[in-house]
Amino acid sequence: MQTIKLVIAYDGTNYSGWQKQKNGPTIQDKVERAVSMICNTETVVHSAGRTDSGVHALAMAAHFKTNSRVSCDDLQRGLNSLLPAAIRILSASEEPADFHARYSALAKTYRYTIFTGPILCPHNRLYTLHVPYQLSIAPMRECLAKLIGEHDFSSFEKTGSRDKSRENSRGAVRTLFRAELEQPEPSLIHFVFTGDGFLRHMVRSIVGTILEIGSGKRTIEEFNQILACKDRNQAGTTAASCGLLLVKVHYEQDW
Amino acid sequence: MQTIKLVIAYDGTNYSGWQKQKNGPTIQDKVERAVSMICNTETVVHSAGRTDSGVHALAMAAHFKTNSRVSCDDLQRGLNSLLPAAIRILSASEEPADFHARYSALAKTYRYTIFTGPILCPHNRLYTLHVPYQLSIAPMRECLAKLIGEHDFSSFEKTGSRDKSRENSRGAVRTLFRAELEQPEPSLIHFVFTGDGFLRHMVRSIVGTILEIGSGKRTIEEFNQILACKDRNQAGTTAASCGLLLVKVHYEQDW
Repeated sequence: MQTIKLVIAYDGTNYSGWQKQKNGPTIQDKVERAVSMICNTETVVHSAGRTDSGVHALAMAAHFKTNSRVSCDDLQRGLNSLLPAAIRILSASEEPADFHARYSALAKTYRYTIFTGPILCPHNRLYTLHVPYQLSIAPMRECLAKLIGEHDFSSFEKTGSRDKSRENSRGAVRTLFRAELEQPEPSLIHFVFTGDGFLRHMVRSIVGTILEIGSGKRTIEEFNQILACKDRNQAGTTAASCGLLLVKVHYEQDW
Repeated sequence: MQTIKLVIAYDGTNYSGWQKQKNGPTIQDKVERAVSMICNTETVVHSAGRTDSGVHALAMAAHFKTNSRVSCDDLQRGLNSLLPAAIRILSASEEPADFHARYSALAKTYRYTIFTGPILCPHNRLYTLHVPYQLSIAPMRECLAKLIGEHDFSSFEKTGSRDKSRENSRGAVRTLFRAELEQPEPSLIHFVFTGDGFLRHMVRSIVGTILEIGSGKRTIEEFNQILACKDRNQAGTTAASCGLLLVKVHYEQDW
């Protein structure tokens, strides 16, 4: 039995996120159906994590087990011919038997994109949050710096989203290795986060809260209090899903 | 009565082209409805030309006449608040009474985008034709050079698309000022055309035919014969609409 790793890019606009569910099509649905067809048997595909409805991926990772003897090259080509153009298999590779897309992952990197100019180009509208006014960069950078390291991120977790029965000992504690604001153009802002794990809506609620600091609605002191109080009700709104992109899942070999 | 010029960007993916019609929503529909609402009376919006179903625009130009006293700034903001995010008014300006988006235009520039790498990024799929193999650049450039100047482009016009009753004396004769191949990255090709006018499907059937030269299916000699024979049946297929973008409409003041 082989263990195959897939790296997958997708436009999440028209999907109800990664995970299989009853309400609308999901990325997992499409990928599993294509893998099952090529491997000639019903196959479960495990991803490194879930992405929410409307969130995009530049390089999601996933794995599955198969007895099929199809080569990785043929598998990649076959999957891309079966999948819609919104989902692309960037690579397929054989991994050691103990490889697991989720448990072997050391970290993930997400990027959130914001455009602050007056008019958002229609071509970018599905991949960008439009905030049509100037934001103060320095205080937003100061907030991001506070997030680096190990913290209890309860204030930035979707209410009721953790399954207590599956709760691990870390609770809502996660470690961020990177939390940066990049400004490739004057009106374009990228928030970039690398962490060992992310709670549900964590990036989007951090971004929603930091935008309130950047627009002067809240102060840096308030941001510190929000992080410390571990209460989701204190944080800002959850920024729209279209701005969020899973950039990379990091494993030992590429860390 | 004022004459207002609009410059409009749009993602044509979900529209049946510019011009009003029964089958599906069009850009003109949406813009006219928004203009009529703001100007408080049914208003016809004339564009510099039509774009086909699925074709995009970075800067289409259009005009309308109105007795409304709304300022151009308010008009632009109001239209953008009424229009879907796929259609953006980049500017609204008052023009001399004799300005006409179509008749005052001196030229238009179109760009057609092709990606030749193995996997097209999902984010670019709506704006790019994917040709997943290497193309020979030099012979394609040679064909493009032949198109510059005044020619009868009958071989590259959609069959039966001209309304003979409205026929002007030029028939299918048009002048191209620019016909170039740019390669911003090794796997990315832009065909750029500037001309005093374009027949229906002209850019897309030129591109479809030149791709046959680039892939070695036809020779440069055959391309010359196709242009000379004035017979649409001799040319190649019409390249997909998603790769086509109206970049600019040129007027005297910005020519």
